Amino acid sequence: MQNPLPLIALLASEAPLRAKPSLYPEPFASRVSGREKRVLGNLFELNNFGVNLTRLAPHAISALRHAHTKQDEFVYILEGCPTLKTDQGNTQLAPGMCAGFKAGTGDAHQLVNETAEDVVYLEVGDRTLGDAANYPDDDLKAELDKGHWKFLHKDGTPY
Amino acid sequence: MQNPLPLIALLASEAPLRAKPSLYPEPFASRVSGREKRVLGNLFELNNFGVNLTRLAPHAISALRHAHTKQDEFVYILEGCPTLKTDQGNTQLAPGMCAGFKAGTGDAHQLVNETAEDVVYLEVGDRTLGDAANYPDDDLKAELDKGHWKFLHKDGTPY
Repeated sequence: MQNPLPLIALLASEAPLRAKPSLYPEPFASRVSGREKRVLGNLFELNNFGVNLTRLAPHAISALRHAHTKQDEFVYILEGCPTLKTDQGNTQLAPGMCAGFKAGTGDAHQLVNETAEDVVYLEVGDRTLGDAANYPDDDLKAELDKGHWKFLHKDGTPY
Repeated sequence: MQNPLPLIALLASEAPLRAKPSLYPEPFASRVSGREKRVLGNLFELNNFGVNLTRLAPHAISALRHAHTKQDEFVYILEGCPTLKTDQGNTQLAPGMCAGFKAGTGDAHQLVNETAEDVVYLEVGDRTLGDAANYPDDDLKAELDKGHWKFLHKDGTPY
């Protein structure tokens, strides 16, 4: 059997939804309901970074507010007006705006859809080994272990 | 003197143009006239990957057709309908479409604006050490040396 031909291009909104809506353990997974991720980079077998097309229904959040130790992140807003929450406070975003979150600064971030319209954005993050994520507002920390995220209480006990 | 506060977000189309329009030596630099790059990721001091907002005037090309050995690349079309040229031939793209170019496949790619309207897209590429680029259609190869691209003839003599 021959390998299928590699994918050349596709309409991002037609990419399949990520099989598992959230990687978080409960009670955190329920807090990201209303968030849909379409995994784009993996469709092209990219390894060094991931790209998702993410949709937030009204009131949905991108993630728990977090900061990565090794992974740079970048978002570009395609539709809607999410609120970016960082240690500096709230910043209103709009289509065509972008933001970057440099690894290791400790400044945690999240997008929150506080509007009545959906928000759609592209998110990019690299896959540097040894990454970890800190969640200043929640009893949670995460460690990347052999390509899989391990979620722990702040005292190190696993969920 | 205090450091300036880090940038939180900006409208991508208002980011400054890249100071040097092309890194290629002549006669190749002239072949990418009509291409404008706004460097976004660097504004947020991201190190692990770059993100540009790139505009192609009618007839402009994204780059000489090339393949990276280590760098994954990804494009997302925001405006206009470029033609993606790979070893598989031509693929017509449109707003909302994306394509990824996995490192090391040897399949070279470029976008060409064969229309009368501008094309605008986001491009992402990681900065894995030891990257090189091959240009099957031109007497050119490139090697990433301490963060800077070195351009050589195919026989290894420098430009």
